Amino acid sequence: MSLAPIDFWFDFSSPYSYIASSWIDALAASHGRTVRRHAILLGATFQAAELKSPVSYPLKREYSLHDFARSARFHGLPYTPPPVFPIPSQNAARVFWWLAATQGGSETGSGAARWAHEGLRAVFTRGLALHEPAVLKAFAAEQGLDADAAETVWNDPVWKARLKQANDEAVASGVFGAPFFRIDGEPFWGNDRRPQMERWLTEGPF
Amino acid sequence: MSLAPIDFWFDFSSPYSYIASSWIDALAASHGRTVRRHAILLGATFQAAELKSPVSYPLKREYSLHDFARSARFHGLPYTPPPVFPIPSQNAARVFWWLAATQGGSETGSGAARWAHEGLRAVFTRGLALHEPAVLKAFAAEQGLDADAAETVWNDPVWKARLKQANDEAVASGVFGAPFFRIDGEPFWGNDRRPQMERWLTEGPF
Repeated sequence: MSLAPIDFWFDFSSPYSYIASSWIDALAASHGRTVRRHAILLGATFQAAELKSPVSYPLKREYSLHDFARSARFHGLPYTPPPVFPIPSQNAARVFWWLAATQGGSETGSGAARWAHEGLRAVFTRGLALHEPAVLKAFAAEQGLDADAAETVWNDPVWKARLKQANDEAVASGVFGAPFFRIDGEPFWGNDRRPQMERWLTEGPF
Repeated sequence: MSLAPIDFWFDFSSPYSYIASSWIDALAASHGRTVRRHAILLGATFQAAELKSPVSYPLKREYSLHDFARSARFHGLPYTPPPVFPIPSQNAARVFWWLAATQGGSETGSGAARWAHEGLRAVFTRGLALHEPAVLKAFAAEQGLDADAAETVWNDPVWKARLKQANDEAVASGVFGAPFFRIDGEPFWGNDRRPQMERWLTEGPF
């Protein structure tokens, strides 16, 4: 019997999602699972949960910017604070859903999963402003996609609607932030829930 | 040369502070340090940071209540959801500052540290409603304090002012939630920053 994939909701502008994207596939694989990624807009989940970005709050902002970088270092990852943060990530997210729909889903190893992983790396290691169409087109080409086709996708009502559906489904299932994970129905919010996820995968429910 | 204590800000109504209180003294001791506790009111830091309790937000509320209990189990601790939550914790906090001022500070081993640790345990393992004067008096007696003296303390403008000062100092130093720690100036927010704190204590800044 094959085990269900681990669901992983992320936003291309979420630093903790960048960090989580670096370890989730290996963690899943070591427990015989794949990862199924879901691109969402934190703006949508924040609105539903009446939250804002951690950098929108006094006091918490300064700590969060410090903790993003420190947490990346803790996980042995490069980190460059993006010059614009947070960025509107809907165009990159629409391309994700297009890839998922046309190239075999969004599980580990798929084109959508690679786009997600590399997109997060581009934002947080090279400061790529993926909200700028020219930058996103160049990044798409770098990733082996047809840049003009990608641009057509993110302007297409079909893929706008697909992303909206993903946001709605996330909210309906209780997702209010990112990274957010579900293992056999059990929710885990945050890069720092990795130890609990590891125990859950190893020993089952606790 | 003796190492500086680890500063630990908590609220008697904070479940993650209850969990952190179970491991912070041993972690500190294993690195030649003590812990210096600071009772604060999250209401004050939340106001300064424009935040609310995690259980005040839609979606996040349900997850948080689930995560409080799961995180306690993860750390091998008993956990009983308090019947009233969050509770106003100012009276217990004023007694803490009175003990700190009159019985030798709030470092590991002090009466104030014990009051803090046992108070959190009482709230989250026995559901004691420490905001009710009769309950708090009984708890004070159980802890070997003069219950009437404790009640006089929490009604005394001197100790009200001392708690307000603690809240103001916490906010001024960047504290916006609990548990919040500082190790040689480095801030760590949340029970889940334990792995980073452990590395910091072992290897120094990273």
